[in-house]
Amino acid sequence: MKRVLSGIQPSGQLHLGNFSGAIQQFVELQADHEMFIFIASYHALTSVRDPEVLRQNITQVATDYIAFGLDPDLPHVNLYRQQDVPEVTELAWLLACVCPKHMMDKATSFKDKTAKGLSASIGLYTYPVLQAADILSVDPDLVPVGKDQVQHCEITRDLAQKFNHNFASEDNPVFRLPDYRVREAAALLPGIDGQKMSKSYDNTIDPFMDEKPLRKRIMKIVSDATPLEDPKDPDNDTTFQIFRAIAGEHDPRTADLATRYRAGGLGYGHAKQELFELVLDTFGPARQRRAELMNDPGYINKVLADGADKARAKARSVLDKARHAVGL
Amino acid sequence: MKRVLSGIQPSGQLHLGNFSGAIQQFVELQADHEMFIFIASYHALTSVRDPEVLRQNITQVATDYIAFGLDPDLPHVNLYRQQDVPEVTELAWLLACVCPKHMMDKATSFKDKTAKGLSASIGLYTYPVLQAADILSVDPDLVPVGKDQVQHCEITRDLAQKFNHNFASEDNPVFRLPDYRVREAAALLPGIDGQKMSKSYDNTIDPFMDEKPLRKRIMKIVSDATPLEDPKDPDNDTTFQIFRAIAGEHDPRTADLATRYRAGGLGYGHAKQELFELVLDTFGPARQRRAELMNDPGYINKVLADGADKARAKARSVLDKARHAVGL
Repeated sequence: MKRVLSGIQPSGQLHLGNFSGAIQQFVELQADHEMFIFIASYHALTSVRDPEVLRQNITQVATDYIAFGLDPDLPHVNLYRQQDVPEVTELAWLLACVCPKHMMDKATSFKDKTAKGLSASIGLYTYPVLQAADILSVDPDLVPVGKDQVQHCEITRDLAQKFNHNFASEDNPVFRLPDYRVREAAALLPGIDGQKMSKSYDNTIDPFMDEKPLRKRIMKIVSDATPLEDPKDPDNDTTFQIFRAIAGEHDPRTADLATRYRAGGLGYGHAKQELFELVLDTFGPARQRRAELMNDPGYINKVLADGADKARAKARSVLDKARHAVGL
Repeated sequence: MKRVLSGIQPSGQLHLGNFSGAIQQFVELQADHEMFIFIASYHALTSVRDPEVLRQNITQVATDYIAFGLDPDLPHVNLYRQQDVPEVTELAWLLACVCPKHMMDKATSFKDKTAKGLSASIGLYTYPVLQAADILSVDPDLVPVGKDQVQHCEITRDLAQKFNHNFASEDNPVFRLPDYRVREAAALLPGIDGQKMSKSYDNTIDPFMDEKPLRKRIMKIVSDATPLEDPKDPDNDTTFQIFRAIAGEHDPRTADLATRYRAGGLGYGHAKQELFELVLDTFGPARQRRAELMNDPGYINKVLADGADKARAKARSVLDKARHAVGL
């Protein structure tokens, strides 16, 4: 079974955009891959300054991932908190000593994030090195990433190579170079204002909301002023686009709704009600599961502890090899 | 008893310059201070690329410090390897997240060291943050330093303050701000060529050398062409300056030798022979002790393990407090 490593940001309650991005892919991959999914709590310190918020977000993101279908009851699926594998910070130091400063100067995420107002800390500046340690610590075959993470995967491979070159022989390298796979762009999923769905635009739909505010939220989706009886172009309507992203492009419900848009006589309000029902229908099991999980923090804690045990054992063995290679 | 923290570089066999600098001060301080002296093996990775050399240097520097008089049999004296307290790398990450990048950009040691040919790595660039973690990890009262380390002590205090400000209340800070004390410039100790004694000038006198090469080395000390019978100015002679630094300025042997310099009739060869005998005399016990230690690696290992246990317990408690404060 090939091993997959991926990190997730503990950035609070998840929305549909997260689901149709990373989560759906994890759920598919876990069928036939060994999974190491960590909650990037050390990385979160580059932006979160409130300990209570951080603690809540960590538990929330673990809960939501499991509710959405990541199944840590499978013996090969490990969900863990980065902070429970402190070996990665030590490994990051070993990598930092073979990482040329100009490699970090060229990394774009620091510039992007400080431009967006994040504090220009050494943590933020060097976090690709910690990320490389996260990845290499479990010796994965594959790292599935979003497009914005490609540069960090390249940095990881570079650092692994430099370290091997300095401290190991070619036939007995310390690190394997992990492959990465860029996630295909998710189906267009606009937020309720028509822009890309994103927390920072405050336009997300959260499928775990209570029914009443969820319905209210969906009813707020932008629409144009075409009268009820007129034909409408589904491809230009936000409600339809969200519907299609959730139901799937080739689902008969999507085709059926498109037909009724074009026929006229379907008001946006009705379309939104159908979207609301689709969300409840699609995420019903996840909503149910999440409600149960919220009442069972002991389960979440056990999942995270078990995951950390497995990840830590891997990290320990990689780190021992790396320490020995440098002379520690 | 006040607690002292200091780090030493594992840079191979020690010479007289090291002794009259840091070591002599440690030997004095250990009388009435709790001592945490660590061998900076993580830091050494910013310059050492040979694992065998690093391992040997670590053992050598531990052996030499004990031979010179650091006494780890005292229950309050702890000598340990940095690598045995990996908690410092985790603490360094927490500090990195409150360390503005411009603070590292302003640090002069990175520029100085890369100018001298060290690789411009992220390890070298960020090492003041790791050093801050080393210091804060044992919550010391006092850090005795050379002049070149003053900036790093200031950075340590700054980071502690920033962390406290962000994550702790004023009446219950996570870190105490450690005081530092700059070592007085050691008595002028030239090397055998008359320049400052330094490994990089290859002009050192190593008091642990075998007698024959040690005597040969001392006989090589530069001297002028004043004939044997003529009076000589002791203050302008390298052999005398080294003699004075070892015997002490106010030692009768120093005054006696100066008198004979000025009287004439004393050849430089005789003066060098007297210096050779002084070195054997002064460092006789250290040479003896070192020979014993070299035959007892089990003792050194036990000293380092015991020291690490004590340092690690301290680091664990500091780190737990820091983790809790940030929300981990």
